Amino acid sequence: MNDRDAIHALRQAVLQANLDLPRHGLVTFTWGNVSGFDARMGVVAIKPSGVPYDALTLDDIVVLTLQGERVAGTLNPSSDTPTHLWLYRSWPQLGGIVHTHSTYATAWAQAGRPIPALGTTHADYFHGPVPCSRPLTRTEVEGDYELTTGQVIVQTFAGLDPMACPGALVAEHAPFAWGGSPRQAVHNAVVLEEVARMALYTLALNPARGPIADHLLDKHFLRKHGKNAYYGQT
Amino acid sequence: MNDRDAIHALRQAVLQANLDLPRHGLVTFTWGNVSGFDARMGVVAIKPSGVPYDALTLDDIVVLTLQGERVAGTLNPSSDTPTHLWLYRSWPQLGGIVHTHSTYATAWAQAGRPIPALGTTHADYFHGPVPCSRPLTRTEVEGDYELTTGQVIVQTFAGLDPMACPGALVAEHAPFAWGGSPRQAVHNAVVLEEVARMALYTLALNPARGPIADHLLDKHFLRKHGKNAYYGQT
Amino acid sequence: MNDRDAIHALRQAVLQANLDLPRHGLVTFTWGNVSGFDARMGVVAIKPSGVPYDALTLDDIVVLTLQGERVAGTLNPSSDTPTHLWLYRSWPQLGGIVHTHSTYATAWAQAGRPIPALGTTHADYFHGPVPCSRPLTRTEVEGDYELTTGQVIVQTFAGLDPMACPGALVAEHAPFAWGGSPRQAVHNAVVLEEVARMALYTLALNPARGPIADHLLDKHFLRKHGKNAYYGQT
Amino acid sequence: MNDRDAIHALRQAVLQANLDLPRHGLVTFTWGNVSGFDARMGVVAIKPSGVPYDALTLDDIVVLTLQGERVAGTLNPSSDTPTHLWLYRSWPQLGGIVHTHSTYATAWAQAGRPIPALGTTHADYFHGPVPCSRPLTRTEVEGDYELTTGQVIVQTFAGLDPMACPGALVAEHAPFAWGGSPRQAVHNAVVLEEVARMALYTLALNPARGPIADHLLDKHFLRKHGKNAYYGQT
Repeated sequence: MNDRDAIHALRQAVLQANLDLPRHGLVTFTWGNVSGFDARMGVVAIKPSGVPYDALTLDDIVVLTLQGERVAGTLNPSSDTPTHLWLYRSWPQLGGIVHTHSTYATAWAQAGRPIPALGTTHADYFHGPVPCSRPLTRTEVEGDYELTTGQVIVQTFAGLDPMACPGALVAEHAPFAWGGSPRQAVHNAVVLEEVARMALYTLALNPARGPIADHLLDKHFLRKHGKNAYYGQT
Repeated sequence: MNDRDAIHALRQAVLQANLDLPRHGLVTFTWGNVSGFDARMGVVAIKPSGVPYDALTLDDIVVLTLQGERVAGTLNPSSDTPTHLWLYRSWPQLGGIVHTHSTYATAWAQAGRPIPALGTTHADYFHGPVPCSRPLTRTEVEGDYELTTGQVIVQTFAGLDPMACPGALVAEHAPFAWGGSPRQAVHNAVVLEEVARMALYTLALNPARGPIADHLLDKHFLRKHGKNAYYGQT
Repeated sequence: MNDRDAIHALRQAVLQANLDLPRHGLVTFTWGNVSGFDARMGVVAIKPSGVPYDALTLDDIVVLTLQGERVAGTLNPSSDTPTHLWLYRSWPQLGGIVHTHSTYATAWAQAGRPIPALGTTHADYFHGPVPCSRPLTRTEVEGDYELTTGQVIVQTFAGLDPMACPGALVAEHAPFAWGGSPRQAVHNAVVLEEVARMALYTLALNPARGPIADHLLDKHFLRKHGKNAYYGQT
Repeated sequence: MNDRDAIHALRQAVLQANLDLPRHGLVTFTWGNVSGFDARMGVVAIKPSGVPYDALTLDDIVVLTLQGERVAGTLNPSSDTPTHLWLYRSWPQLGGIVHTHSTYATAWAQAGRPIPALGTTHADYFHGPVPCSRPLTRTEVEGDYELTTGQVIVQTFAGLDPMACPGALVAEHAPFAWGGSPRQAVHNAVVLEEVARMALYTLALNPARGPIADHLLDKHFLRKHGKNAYYGQT
């Protein structure tokens, strides 16, 4: 595929993934954005800022280098763009990133609590708790806020594989999720929201409930991921 | 635009905003109303009382002066009209007002608690807690009830800018929201409901959680509002 | 209207009201039924037992005397028919009765708690708490169970006007609601469910919250009901 | 019916029952599967692993013997197949089995709590609490995991009739439900989810609430099931 076609395909995937956010009930108004990364070309495509999903077209999708230089598109990119760019620069294995204010995951982020692995639904996708970042300091918030948000997410994952835990909560803010493509990132954002909802109800029923045992966590994560996976058709 | 056209446009905006209430899931039956204010003409258009949304037409929208004298329309205006009129008389910068009994915001109003700013979703729209009024006294309830409801909302905002906090809870009753137009008022009513829902879940997860720091509150409110805003396309 | 036409009209109203139950989200499968009463003829029309709403036709609606003798229809009437008949015999001012297992009202019934009047949404329809019956005894359950359910509801209303509180909870079971017609009964069942939901959330936010003051309860109930009502167009 | 037609009919029933899972809101993505059992032929039809419901066709449905030997279909059967097969081998009266991660039932499973019979909605279908299994040991999880899951469910029912309690929770995992056919199994899975939801809210309103009395449990279960049943049209 030549560069022109590759950019078209990336924008198409990012457009579709953004349109999937309201379809999955993850967003109110314009409160969410999806980006995609083409590793070969080193470019990121992302939703423009503040444009309603039902008005979004392929030409609206903004394409940038990893340093934020414009490659295609004329609209302002999402105000969260520096966060996305930092995550791709830190974790080049990512192919797509989603930010939403989905209700239940946001409640956990506002509560400042990581989501514990309370069952196999969680373990099928997240190989441990979904971490919650520390709050940003006054200096960080008043400085390069969106960039620092990305840096704090990466700090939170020190020693963790982001592909084994494809999402995080930013304290007092909301979730980010990611994956190998924009489509997979949206898939993981849906799972994160459902896992957050189940965990809220679980703790309402049993406030002392701790995380599941490591052997059950490993079993479920590894039956869907890794070289010995046996879920699905491949 | 001449007066006749201006009144037509105002009624049209108010009709559309009322129809948006059920579309956003904010109302059961006829439990909600939107009004709009034309500052140049000094007139208010408002939903008629007890008419189902799916039967509402442009001619049903009642137009009144700020003192409640009828300008157009033959139906009874919403029983909450005196509340709307008082708010426009006190805060002429308002272009639209919404009253609903939306589930989560009403639960906070019934609980008699202001909604604290627990995250950036809240801070993007409300520059501080959403205040909850004091309960009305027996004399106030038995007197000019709907007018006094408006007066108590205004009292609750003593020293606050209503455009920096476009909504309030009336204790033991339900929310009001407002904005620069009927459309923006409905937008803010949707946000208020979602923020109320997130805050309920947040406190279920962390009952001791206090509001976010002022620097984060300021950052998010001001990146969307005011002269240095950088969210969106303008 | 002659008797034949009156029976047709009653069945039509009862059919439509039953079809409205799933439309309002009040029922799972066949868990709900609506009846209607024609006071002039002294007959009751009611949903047949166990028939899915989407298969229901006018001829399926069973018509009975107040003593349960069949007037029209060949199917078995709802197993709850003796409860409905007792309520009409005790309160001939009723024109329609609804029984559902709607989620939130059923939770209150299972908890064995009356729903307190926590706000004006409640007060607009119920002039006081929605009462919860005592549990039925072993003898009552093993005897004429459905008839006794009606008798226990009537006992629970000793001294109360059923038109001023158009619904009740049967302990360990689920809600009943009623009104001047099958349509109004369904309307009140929707309100009861929404009020139950708001009250659950209100007490989660403020467990010590007591009922609203009598003057606010009276104001809202009486602005919609009674000779000085001023809500709506009539 | 000859064998070829019987297999076709079984696959058709299993296909339809799988398609009903998203229609009833029981599944996210591919998180659920239904199987059916033909007792005369001794074969089981089951959903293939990881195939989205909207892409599922009759030829995708895999048919196996009770020992797991392939009879028809080329795709990998659900990874949960050994659990289904064990249940049919232990309880040949079952005609259909459903596994989902439906939100509320999964929350109870994650909490490790059986769902108590708190009202007649529960008693209409489950003649006692919905049991919750013990957690599987490390050896069991690392061994023949899905088979052992079936064995632990059967252990949990020691002395209980599975047709009198057509569902169970697997601790730290999610619910299974069953019935006389794939369609009835899905019906019972819907009921289990609704009962789990009502029970969560009931205990939020009254944490000390115990189960209903045996006479009420018996009355409701037996008016719908058994030789003296009088609910419905037969």
